[in-house]
Amino acid sequence: MTTTKKLLNGSDTAVIDALKGLVLTYGHLQRLDGSPQIKVVINRNHDKSKVAVISGGGSGHEPAHAGYVGEGMLAAAVCGDIFASPSTEAVLAAIRAVTGVAGCLLIVKNYTGDRLNFGLAVEQALAEGLMVEMVVVGEDVAIECPSPIAGRRGLAGTVLVHKAAGAAAARGAPLAEVAAIASRVAGAVATLGVGLTVCTLPGKPTSDRLGPDEVELGLGIHGEPGRTKESPLPPAGDLVRRMLVQLTSGPSFRLKADPRVILLVNNLGATPPLELSVVTGEALTALRQEYGAAVDRLFVGPYMTSLDMAGMSLTVLSYDLEDDQHREGWDELLELLDSPTLAPGWAGACGGRIAVPGPYDPSSYGDVPAPLPPRDSDIEVPPPPEVEPEVEAAPPSPSPRRRESSCSSSSSSDEEETVPPPPPPPPKSKPGEVFGRCLRAAAEALLAAAPALDEMDAKVGDGDCGSTVASAASAIVRQLDAGEMALYAPATVAMQLARCIRNTVGGSSGALYDIFLTAAARQLKTGPIYDVTTQDWAEAFSAGLVAVQKYGRADVGCRTMLDALLPARDALVASLDTGCDAAAAAAAAAGAAAAGAEATRSMAAMAGRSSYVPAEVLAEVSDPGATAAAVWLRAVAQALQQQ
Amino acid sequence: MTTTKKLLNGSDTAVIDALKGLVLTYGHLQRLDGSPQIKVVINRNHDKSKVAVISGGGSGHEPAHAGYVGEGMLAAAVCGDIFASPSTEAVLAAIRAVTGVAGCLLIVKNYTGDRLNFGLAVEQALAEGLMVEMVVVGEDVAIECPSPIAGRRGLAGTVLVHKAAGAAAARGAPLAEVAAIASRVAGAVATLGVGLTVCTLPGKPTSDRLGPDEVELGLGIHGEPGRTKESPLPPAGDLVRRMLVQLTSGPSFRLKADPRVILLVNNLGATPPLELSVVTGEALTALRQEYGAAVDRLFVGPYMTSLDMAGMSLTVLSYDLEDDQHREGWDELLELLDSPTLAPGWAGACGGRIAVPGPYDPSSYGDVPAPLPPRDSDIEVPPPPEVEPEVEAAPPSPSPRRRESSCSSSSSSDEEETVPPPPPPPPKSKPGEVFGRCLRAAAEALLAAAPALDEMDAKVGDGDCGSTVASAASAIVRQLDAGEMALYAPATVAMQLARCIRNTVGGSSGALYDIFLTAAARQLKTGPIYDVTTQDWAEAFSAGLVAVQKYGRADVGCRTMLDALLPARDALVASLDTGCDAAAAAAAAAGAAAAGAEATRSMAAMAGRSSYVPAEVLAEVSDPGATAAAVWLRAVAQALQQQ
Repeated sequence: MTTTKKLLNGSDTAVIDALKGLVLTYGHLQRLDGSPQIKVVINRNHDKSKVAVISGGGSGHEPAHAGYVGEGMLAAAVCGDIFASPSTEAVLAAIRAVTGVAGCLLIVKNYTGDRLNFGLAVEQALAEGLMVEMVVVGEDVAIECPSPIAGRRGLAGTVLVHKAAGAAAARGAPLAEVAAIASRVAGAVATLGVGLTVCTLPGKPTSDRLGPDEVELGLGIHGEPGRTKESPLPPAGDLVRRMLVQLTSGPSFRLKADPRVILLVNNLGATPPLELSVVTGEALTALRQEYGAAVDRLFVGPYMTSLDMAGMSLTVLSYDLEDDQHREGWDELLELLDSPTLAPGWAGACGGRIAVPGPYDPSSYGDVPAPLPPRDSDIEVPPPPEVEPEVEAAPPSPSPRRRESSCSSSSSSDEEETVPPPPPPPPKSKPGEVFGRCLRAAAEALLAAAPALDEMDAKVGDGDCGSTVASAASAIVRQLDAGEMALYAPATVAMQLARCIRNTVGGSSGALYDIFLTAAARQLKTGPIYDVTTQDWAEAFSAGLVAVQKYGRADVGCRTMLDALLPARDALVASLDTGCDAAAAAAAAAGAAAAGAEATRSMAAMAGRSSYVPAEVLAEVSDPGATAAAVWLRAVAQALQQQ
Repeated sequence: MTTTKKLLNGSDTAVIDALKGLVLTYGHLQRLDGSPQIKVVINRNHDKSKVAVISGGGSGHEPAHAGYVGEGMLAAAVCGDIFASPSTEAVLAAIRAVTGVAGCLLIVKNYTGDRLNFGLAVEQALAEGLMVEMVVVGEDVAIECPSPIAGRRGLAGTVLVHKAAGAAAARGAPLAEVAAIASRVAGAVATLGVGLTVCTLPGKPTSDRLGPDEVELGLGIHGEPGRTKESPLPPAGDLVRRMLVQLTSGPSFRLKADPRVILLVNNLGATPPLELSVVTGEALTALRQEYGAAVDRLFVGPYMTSLDMAGMSLTVLSYDLEDDQHREGWDELLELLDSPTLAPGWAGACGGRIAVPGPYDPSSYGDVPAPLPPRDSDIEVPPPPEVEPEVEAAPPSPSPRRRESSCSSSSSSDEEETVPPPPPPPPKSKPGEVFGRCLRAAAEALLAAAPALDEMDAKVGDGDCGSTVASAASAIVRQLDAGEMALYAPATVAMQLARCIRNTVGGSSGALYDIFLTAAARQLKTGPIYDVTTQDWAEAFSAGLVAVQKYGRADVGCRTMLDALLPARDALVASLDTGCDAAAAAAAAAGAAAAGAEATRSMAAMAGRSSYVPAEVLAEVSDPGATAAAVWLRAVAQALQQQ
């Protein structure tokens, strides 16, 4: 158990500091100044000729409840300490502050403490001569048959009751009507939650009751354990479908066929928006496809949180229920939910306006095809020249290669004269085959190195260098396996590689390799299509790097892939100048790349994300991009030596 | 390192599933359907006669960037994989989809990959005959002198550039003007972030580089390490003030005195709204008090997240900077930021409307005093009768107590005849002194038991039973120390205790003890003011419990405090009926309470939050409320025996 870090001044002042911040932020809010136990926020513009809707409860559920104070929603919120009911005195203070001749409605989540303290305040306010009504909301469906004493818990669905009642009050409805609307909504709503983590109270240790793979279903919003534990967490789509079954078919809430519903996807506090969007898409699709539901309104966001809990709850509101009650006024309810409010939490959670999903068309997700470039554009790569894969290419002629000689390469083909008797040489392969083997070797080496590259990148970057490289490598292997690479025309292959990387890899490394290969291809196109010499390859390699330097603005010493690639180019050119063959030159280049990558440890980063990382962290690992370059160069060199 | 649970269908489909969900949620959004690598969301209602503002970048920053698509903000968002730049092809597809005769503006966060891919797309779109401009945003001030190659990172401030440019475009401004506004805002903004946790990529392990007490300052939004580590996390107010110093006094962004500013408090993903409100209040106050700033607009929420990172960034936008540049159009900028937009992320993050904090009045936080009850109300407890603390009360007469006799109590006073020679008895104390000692003993015992009670409650409730009880006990000890309890008039003391608990404790236990003491006081008032007998005490105890049962609806067997208190009452009454003295009767009651509390282990909970907890968890601990009752009853019994 560890205490969770929190952005607070201290555990004791967490609630009051947060309320101060909220009141400072939104000019229409005001705090009642009383004993520290009176944590009441009111709408300073509340019109006392209208019904005052008041709610409250323990804190830790922000934006509930103070965030719902504002014209068109709550007139006052009574806030307790974290997860603790406010005192009767605080509730009374709120009632007295905002209640006029039209009276007030208290909306209370069904917890014993809240029921008692709000109930006692109602009694006392009535004794003071005020008109007061109270509606208790309990819409949790986690428990099939709750004890009659406790009843069902009040969860995120309560916020819909706030909104409907607040809007009715703002329209000038009398207290009895406002209370009737609140009761109707409270009786037509069901909520079920899932928790991925346990929430932590300020200054308290975090419970370790949830294992790293476990989640809880049917949870409350105060850190209490869920009804069931599950491990591992199912895929979001499965989870949502199971939750919807439990939500809509229990004894207290059973949907009719083809119902009209409102869906609320509530963030319990620490769920990233990305995940909430995934859940929302699944829930919306399931409700439409599996229940025939018309989802008339959709709310997504943090409406009723549980401190820092990761997880969400689904709330379904519908008047189309299989019970004997006759409900009317669905369209009126939609109007109430749609009507504007100045409550920051409502608008903030739902996007200022309520999402009204487009009409449901099962055949389409509403997508449109990506537009093609205009006809007269030349950005489309022209189709590669037709090749005849089965035509035997001329075997590479060893002697015409420029300046054979005295390299220390271990490659066997150079020293045929001095090593008698050689093992029967492998059948000479076609140039395209060599290229294919090099490409496959490079891709496979990158795939093998991916986890290590990810680990290095996690220390100095965003941790995805290996994955990025691996997705490109997988795509290359797939294309090789499918025979989709026109291996006989190197310039075409370079363009294909560039396109393959463009289609599979984002990020700067993808763009830079794209640039590298495109420029290399352009260089290769200046020579013969099929009969590409080692020198041609070296020139293409150099041309690619010139382009990378031009667009990427980096050089040797900047802790980038260029720290491997530029020394490799120098070694390659020098080896060829002294007469080495392809394999030896590639080995020299690979060696230089490895040394260059290793040298990046001592470099400050000047480009890319590593440039924001402290030097002592950088010294722990070499640059992942440079390392990846060294990896594929070594694989190519090894493949060439095995010819 | 553990892999973090996420609400996803799978790591590979996270981004596309989230975009599908978003597009399903908001009817005006549409996805371009192309290769899986084209993850583009457009505003299907975009008017091509106006400039199209386009942005994008890696995913994982939701609501950026797809959440900012909508009338008045972006015409299209180009989304990469998590933290990876989208491809050039995807950017081009977006440009082609939304750009008409008025042209388009690309707003790009300054990362090499984005700069390259968006830049290449600009070149290609220009070649296709389109009018395109690009503005790069880099407003990170974590690094004083970034390398000229990398430059400053683009962070949350970019969203303000989106909004200003999008609003200008919606007004029909030509491309050059829209680009000029974007550049002006980009040059007048500064951001600094703090991370409490490291974010975790889907399917990846979480880095353990941050210790449980460590935080990182000057972080990026891709999980890259911050510039400095710090331990422990400072209080929010200190942290915010230090961040503001670094934000506003660096070489690239230096505020003039008394500036007009806009503040953006950005949730990095997993920060609960409670904490963000605390930070906002501190930042707003510091800017006003320490910089003389007029905070013209304030944005609070998740604008540019980093997956599930807990933490926040502060962004300050101001035209009152100490550089040579002459900036104009502040009021126009406010208009642009205020103008409505249908982009769900903007409205959702800022509350639909932008917060316009009220005028700054240093003497007040804008609070109003809690209203007092109306004059004719009788809810105010009348002041206790004046007591003369120094007047010697009559020593309690042992013999007049009713029915002395044959109890097995170990109390010494009963058996004076049989134990010769007794040690000199302690001086007989005043009745008020005995009451005070009992009260102090009860309070101190509860304080000592608080941690254990919290631990029990963490298993079956919300983990605050001990803290709740301890805050009441501390208040009682303080009042005793300060001599503020009128110990001679038990009914008054009971009212004082009720009020003390009301003022310090929320939750249902607070309300129930309030009810208990109020009812007990009413019973005590029916007898003599000072000369309260043991029988009177027992009757008051019973009356209190009747009230608790009436309002709390629980009984023996419901796993509540009544499982200790009701058996205690029965034992108390039975002991007194058989002639025991106060000490012996209290000991019997304490024993019964302890047994009752222990018995709760086997009970299903029927009231309170424990009623939602599975039976096997409940069996591990006894009910914390019942245990607390047993604790204070035992302390009272021990105090009486020591007389």
